Amino acid sequence: MSDLLSKLDPPQRVLMGPGPSDVPARILNALAAPTIGHLDPAYLQLMDQTRQLMRQVFQTENEMTLAISGTGSAGMEACVTNLIERGDRMIACVSGVFGGRMADVAGRYGASVDLVEVPWGEAIRPEQVEAALKAAPQTKAVGIVQAETSTGLLQPLDEIAEIVHAHDALLVVDAVTSLGGMEVPVDRLGIDACFSGTQKNLSCPPGLAPVTFSQRAVEIMDRRKSKVGSWYLDLSMIRNYWGSDRSYHHTAPINMTYALREALQIIVEEGLVARFERHQAMHRRLRAGLEALGLTYIPQHSLPNLNCVRVPDGVDDAAVRRQLLTEYGIEIGAGLGPFKGTAWRIGLMGHSCTARNVTLILAALETILRQSGSLIEPGSALAAAAQASDA
Amino acid sequence: MSDLLSKLDPPQRVLMGPGPSDVPARILNALAAPTIGHLDPAYLQLMDQTRQLMRQVFQTENEMTLAISGTGSAGMEACVTNLIERGDRMIACVSGVFGGRMADVAGRYGASVDLVEVPWGEAIRPEQVEAALKAAPQTKAVGIVQAETSTGLLQPLDEIAEIVHAHDALLVVDAVTSLGGMEVPVDRLGIDACFSGTQKNLSCPPGLAPVTFSQRAVEIMDRRKSKVGSWYLDLSMIRNYWGSDRSYHHTAPINMTYALREALQIIVEEGLVARFERHQAMHRRLRAGLEALGLTYIPQHSLPNLNCVRVPDGVDDAAVRRQLLTEYGIEIGAGLGPFKGTAWRIGLMGHSCTARNVTLILAALETILRQSGSLIEPGSALAAAAQASDA
Repeated sequence: MSDLLSKLDPPQRVLMGPGPSDVPARILNALAAPTIGHLDPAYLQLMDQTRQLMRQVFQTENEMTLAISGTGSAGMEACVTNLIERGDRMIACVSGVFGGRMADVAGRYGASVDLVEVPWGEAIRPEQVEAALKAAPQTKAVGIVQAETSTGLLQPLDEIAEIVHAHDALLVVDAVTSLGGMEVPVDRLGIDACFSGTQKNLSCPPGLAPVTFSQRAVEIMDRRKSKVGSWYLDLSMIRNYWGSDRSYHHTAPINMTYALREALQIIVEEGLVARFERHQAMHRRLRAGLEALGLTYIPQHSLPNLNCVRVPDGVDDAAVRRQLLTEYGIEIGAGLGPFKGTAWRIGLMGHSCTARNVTLILAALETILRQSGSLIEPGSALAAAAQASDA
Repeated sequence: MSDLLSKLDPPQRVLMGPGPSDVPARILNALAAPTIGHLDPAYLQLMDQTRQLMRQVFQTENEMTLAISGTGSAGMEACVTNLIERGDRMIACVSGVFGGRMADVAGRYGASVDLVEVPWGEAIRPEQVEAALKAAPQTKAVGIVQAETSTGLLQPLDEIAEIVHAHDALLVVDAVTSLGGMEVPVDRLGIDACFSGTQKNLSCPPGLAPVTFSQRAVEIMDRRKSKVGSWYLDLSMIRNYWGSDRSYHHTAPINMTYALREALQIIVEEGLVARFERHQAMHRRLRAGLEALGLTYIPQHSLPNLNCVRVPDGVDDAAVRRQLLTEYGIEIGAGLGPFKGTAWRIGLMGHSCTARNVTLILAALETILRQSGSLIEPGSALAAAAQASDA
């Protein structure tokens, strides 16, 4: 019983995994503002501001831009269940966990799912998508992950977006690990449905999923013949709460909206261009340092904000992560799926993406690898990082 | 732009609607504790403590007791989608909005739904449930709302629970507006699936949905032939995250877990018996005062913590609520569905359930009704409330 009633005292971590990232004090303070009602005029105004800020970060004018009341995966499921009716055909591009997840979700809502696959860590090739669309010309939607959290892959989207639209299909993009840390050009690419989460580059606690839908996607939703599969995620009702009707659907996570608004304000104040450059610059430093330690990157194109490297031969993956956590208070991510035990995922997301953290993780990793006698190229990480910062 | 970047400054309300209720400073502080990783050993320990505390408030030993990462309606959908397979038969008892919602959700997941209905505000009668089960003996589950938020009805459950189990069906109970404010005797009644939300009598911000499942319900889930309809709510995976496997499913709303743990601690510290008595005592005072003002209760049996009364003839519903909000900073709820414009819903939930608030709402309502010349029995509300407090 005493443990059950003990005072909350979470350890102070440096969050350098695949999310959550470190949350600024300003956002934690916003989270703790007094709760008001979900139909209070003051709250409805905060929702309006939040959706306008979301549009800026999604680089879109889309009217239907809002936050789903769940974490990033709820955003994925909202996109799928609102666009797909039983018997519809959908292509899911799979290069890691999250592309596979989209296929799983679509199947549950009755889609006939065709997979476009590559080995984990490789990018989906435009000609694969083209071939799949030619083989299934009645395909309604193509789902693809821009930032594959399981492998650190940055998936190029320009050509694929053109191909999908040339075949009159909807483009559904997973931007959970990209939004707020790099370009997610929703309008430029004509992305029809895009979803993200709050706990990655927005540096907000987890609990909301920003989503945005093109006018074309909204028209297709409006023409549905059947009810949306999920009641909780049914945008035909939720849009009336976020819109001018203000019809009650479910009670929104009010304090999380405070926090998301604050997180988006911080991004708009920093400016998207400056923010993306910061992520690129810190990534170059980190990459130079990790490679100087002899670590190699797994993905064909690395995300700036999630660095997925192979665990060196003979190094105990879990022991290193445990030492980082317990001695240094630093969290990094383990490998998933085929990379379980063989990959580390080092995040540089939002508030966690700083010169201090790059220096800290390189110094800590070098020290730990040195202690275990498994350092391949000792002493060069910080020098390489410093050199990259001059570049 | 300036509005978009304005400092967060929500008004300080007194929340006396159907939820959210006022959140104690202690819970807001917990919410704002530093975010840590969703797989951090320190977080997993907090999850364990939170589920143990949830068991106490649900009055159950159920192993499968956890918090769904969404608001109360996500809890409802989780219960339905995990128990129901396409083609299953389910009975939904409808005496207001939320019984109807359960029917809607079950239909979307492919259930063949039989309705047991009464006029809004009346209680479902045991013989109705018995008749429905006899008419559809293969019924898998019966869904019923213990605390109907739309009408303030307290639904007696004892006899209905016996009938449902005598017919070998599962009993699914909506305890969104009851948990933490009155008895929700999950084990005593053998409730098979029960869901709630955080923003009612737990006085925590909205964002999580506590749920609990009996061993029998778990066995039925284990024998499913098809995947659960919703990926996000699939307990066959989520249970491995809350259980000893700690398999990643989705990123839990970490800070909301801090807040829920704190809210449950406050309840356990107060003690369930004392807490329920406080809600009853404040309800008696409020009821005496409201009735002295000439207001009449709508439901056949009123919940202690949600008081649903008729708007007196000739009184402008919206104008009174607006005046309460803008002049007094007090939020009460409007009527829903058939009671739109004709009912007020006054909540006495958790931290909002105090002598101060009872006195305040009675005094404010009396003043407003007096000002508009529509006071039926002036001056007696506080006297009646005082008398009820002596009783």
